Amino acid sequence: MRADIISIGTELLLGQITDTNAPYIAAELPLLGIDLYWITQVGDNRARILEALGRALDRSEVVICTGGLGPTEDDVTREAIAELLGEDMHVDPALEEWLRRLFKGFGLEMPDCNIKQANLIPSAEAIPNSRGTAPGWWVEREGKVIAALPGPPDEMQFMWQNSVKPRLRLSPGQGVIVSRTLKTLGFSEARVNEMVREYLCSSNPTLGIYAKLDGIHLRLTAKAGSRAEAEEAITLVEARLKDLFGRYIWGYDEDTLETLVGSLLREKKLNLAVMESCTGGLLASTITDVPGSSEYFKGGLVTYSAEMKAAFGVDAGMLARVGTVHPDVAVAMAGAARAKLGADIGIGITGVAGPSEVEGKPVGTVHIAVDVRGDASSLSLRLPPRRIDVKRRAVFSALFMLRQRLL
Amino acid sequence: MRADIISIGTELLLGQITDTNAPYIAAELPLLGIDLYWITQVGDNRARILEALGRALDRSEVVICTGGLGPTEDDVTREAIAELLGEDMHVDPALEEWLRRLFKGFGLEMPDCNIKQANLIPSAEAIPNSRGTAPGWWVEREGKVIAALPGPPDEMQFMWQNSVKPRLRLSPGQGVIVSRTLKTLGFSEARVNEMVREYLCSSNPTLGIYAKLDGIHLRLTAKAGSRAEAEEAITLVEARLKDLFGRYIWGYDEDTLETLVGSLLREKKLNLAVMESCTGGLLASTITDVPGSSEYFKGGLVTYSAEMKAAFGVDAGMLARVGTVHPDVAVAMAGAARAKLGADIGIGITGVAGPSEVEGKPVGTVHIAVDVRGDASSLSLRLPPRRIDVKRRAVFSALFMLRQRLL
Repeated sequence: MRADIISIGTELLLGQITDTNAPYIAAELPLLGIDLYWITQVGDNRARILEALGRALDRSEVVICTGGLGPTEDDVTREAIAELLGEDMHVDPALEEWLRRLFKGFGLEMPDCNIKQANLIPSAEAIPNSRGTAPGWWVEREGKVIAALPGPPDEMQFMWQNSVKPRLRLSPGQGVIVSRTLKTLGFSEARVNEMVREYLCSSNPTLGIYAKLDGIHLRLTAKAGSRAEAEEAITLVEARLKDLFGRYIWGYDEDTLETLVGSLLREKKLNLAVMESCTGGLLASTITDVPGSSEYFKGGLVTYSAEMKAAFGVDAGMLARVGTVHPDVAVAMAGAARAKLGADIGIGITGVAGPSEVEGKPVGTVHIAVDVRGDASSLSLRLPPRRIDVKRRAVFSALFMLRQRLL
Repeated sequence: MRADIISIGTELLLGQITDTNAPYIAAELPLLGIDLYWITQVGDNRARILEALGRALDRSEVVICTGGLGPTEDDVTREAIAELLGEDMHVDPALEEWLRRLFKGFGLEMPDCNIKQANLIPSAEAIPNSRGTAPGWWVEREGKVIAALPGPPDEMQFMWQNSVKPRLRLSPGQGVIVSRTLKTLGFSEARVNEMVREYLCSSNPTLGIYAKLDGIHLRLTAKAGSRAEAEEAITLVEARLKDLFGRYIWGYDEDTLETLVGSLLREKKLNLAVMESCTGGLLASTITDVPGSSEYFKGGLVTYSAEMKAAFGVDAGMLARVGTVHPDVAVAMAGAARAKLGADIGIGITGVAGPSEVEGKPVGTVHIAVDVRGDASSLSLRLPPRRIDVKRRAVFSALFMLRQRLL
């Protein structure tokens, strides 16, 4: 079975918003055995929506469109579908009743323009929207389907999951696409390229290299007649990559460093405290993004000056001697965090996030220390000089370092 | 002048990555007076790329495509352009020389498959890529242009800015589209909808309402014969919205709360310290995302337990009496942050980020206090219960509150 996705909205064509609806749906289709060959973005223009819909319906059995279901004159997705199928729209009494009740519930009078959201055509049934005023349309004619969903992602996703996806049955005997991502940290992109060189020209599985803030990701994608065959093709190459990268592979697919580190700390019944300078609280915030992190995270200190570092236990003499950006200071910060907050493990980070150098040290200089019950190790990095990215990369490096110490 | 954008890559059609290249380019085109009516995403499939290119070149004077310029067999954008134009590809000696030098510079031998990145056709000239191995193509024939750029956003953006955009001259006499975003915080989406009801059915300017973590954004978009006319249409409605929302409008367009608050603190020569519980360091991290924030940010304490709050100066008796999630605790935290770090202003945040309730308080409960030289005020919120969003919304609310106090 083939699908087309059409994302509708002038704001997409003006670059005011990025379309996240199409990739969301696209990621779900391979698991339904549905092939997606085309995504089209078009503005709120009836003629062009009509053209896009017509082309999509010619070549695919399923057309999923998002957007253009709002109450204003600009929103013409319904009108375009009706025109394509040569059917007339009418206000559906049950939908109108639902809409009026919805507005009443908010204590509002329904604006006149909203009545169009109660429109249907004979081939369409309404897809309920529990998060907004725009019902979707499920249109079935001559064995083909058009599903029209509203543009706001939370409404679209809910309706996709609950009303559209369950009706698109898995079509048997189709090719299946399976992907696996291996996440590495510690090698440069050029070095990774060199290490995996022999696989770069391979076509099944293909190997993609993606430089991310939490390291270099290697994505294997295989297409085969069955899930088992595709997985086998991936597993063969994956085993080779595991030999090559060893412990520099820190996770797979949806894994995050903060979640993996959290599980290790919980498992080993250890707790953690941090003292951060250039990351400005981002390390603590990333650790506490994990539900239940209060079990192992004691707390954090953001010491944004030499004076503040000294106030929380870093030796003032050392700071006067070596400055604030130095591996020894990172070690002292890790130790001070442990001592001050009474934790098993302390992490210290100091460096230069930019945009200007500090104490003669260039932007991107970062020193990280991990102190496990008094046994400290440190790592010095020189990261690309973009402030927000220096913060993020430093945080991921600290978590990676902690993971290596815990394993 | 009209443009088409084609984003090429099977990973887009599998939903593995979100296309940010098309919106990036789309946002630049209105300023060049170029209309964009179609964005198409297609996989690494020669027949479909050819079809997409042909359709685009029929209806537009400029076709910008991204992706498919890599070294592997899958990358066939060059081949499709050559086929469309009926021209033969040849390896360009200068490009080959450049490529081989590039690999040599990394200390690597050039893989055989990379030679195809040195291909050109007679109508194409190479667009230099200083950030990767894939040169772009600038193809000009019969008054029309195809610009082919690589998919990695940093390479694409650099080449767009330096080589493509400067060659697409501003075409005079075209319609111009101008947008303005007003950012509000403090009203619910339903309330904002009600307040702006009379403008929702307007078509020039159109009014879009976007619920974001830093508040409700109102975007006005006008199209007119000239920039001045479009701006006039926006200014009229903007003035009415300003009357309606007053100080609840905190910024415009690219403004961020952390930057605006930073400017106010610098202007008033005041400095800041924070003590956070449920936001786990995100407030400090957001404040320190701003370059130069060390001028006014003294530091932060992440106190993730009652014991830690008491250790840093919150009255233990109060904690025993009212628990950790209470407006009085937020006020005490703000005061303790000021006192402990010697700052003019302290902010305290306590609450329940989730996923489980704490001390019988539901997820999403947040108390924020701002203490300006001993004069404290607090705010209590009940936010939608999604952990990461609770953290972010609480941070933005704290910054908004601080802004109101500083004005």
